[in-house]
Amino acid sequence: LSDAERESLSRELRSDYQDIILTYFRQESDTNHKIDDLVNKMFFADVSVSQVLEIHMELMERFAKKLKLEGRNEDILLDYRLTLIDTIAHLCEMYRRSIPRES
Amino acid sequence: LSDAERESLSRELRSDYQDIILTYFRQESDTNHKIDDLVNKMFFADVSVSQVLEIHMELMERFAKKLKLEGRNEDILLDYRLTLIDTIAHLCEMYRRSIPRES
Repeated sequence: LSDAERESLSRELRSDYQDIILTYFRQESDTNHKIDDLVNKMFFADVSVSQVLEIHMELMERFAKKLKLEGRNEDILLDYRLTLIDTIAHLCEMYRRSIPRES
Repeated sequence: LSDAERESLSRELRSDYQDIILTYFRQESDTNHKIDDLVNKMFFADVSVSQVLEIHMELMERFAKKLKLEGRNEDILLDYRLTLIDTIAHLCEMYRRSIPRES
């Protein structure tokens, strides 16, 4: 990937992840499908878990600042760890299943 | 693996993970090394993330019962999601690095 492509992919992953976070706890949202799509992109770009953690932490910091400005409690952000676990779990399974194994 | 071996491995993974959970927030503990050891075992046994989640949830349920009996708040258990994230992250990286890629 060129630098421009890498930058564009990075923006896309961040935007997708933010969308997943924002709709994660809504019953009607198609979260599983969205996570599958994101994880597919990550898989083909060979994204590491530390990059996923980075995306998550950056987003949480932004949300924390916003909640603080609004005088609201930041504890709600802890719930989004579930979204992170779910995302990493999907990604890990894609990587695991792609390893050639003698059976 | 035979059924007996599988059962023994499963017990070992559960016991290792419990040890990591119990020492995770202590400064002096060698957590990173312990997680590496556990994740190595999991990798060679081709353990899936859903199995790791299962081990985590079972342990949390046991702890929750214990805290309830002692009349203590269960909120502390949420902190252990960090341990889970850390463990899955390590495992995911092992799987990712084991995929043959054309570069």
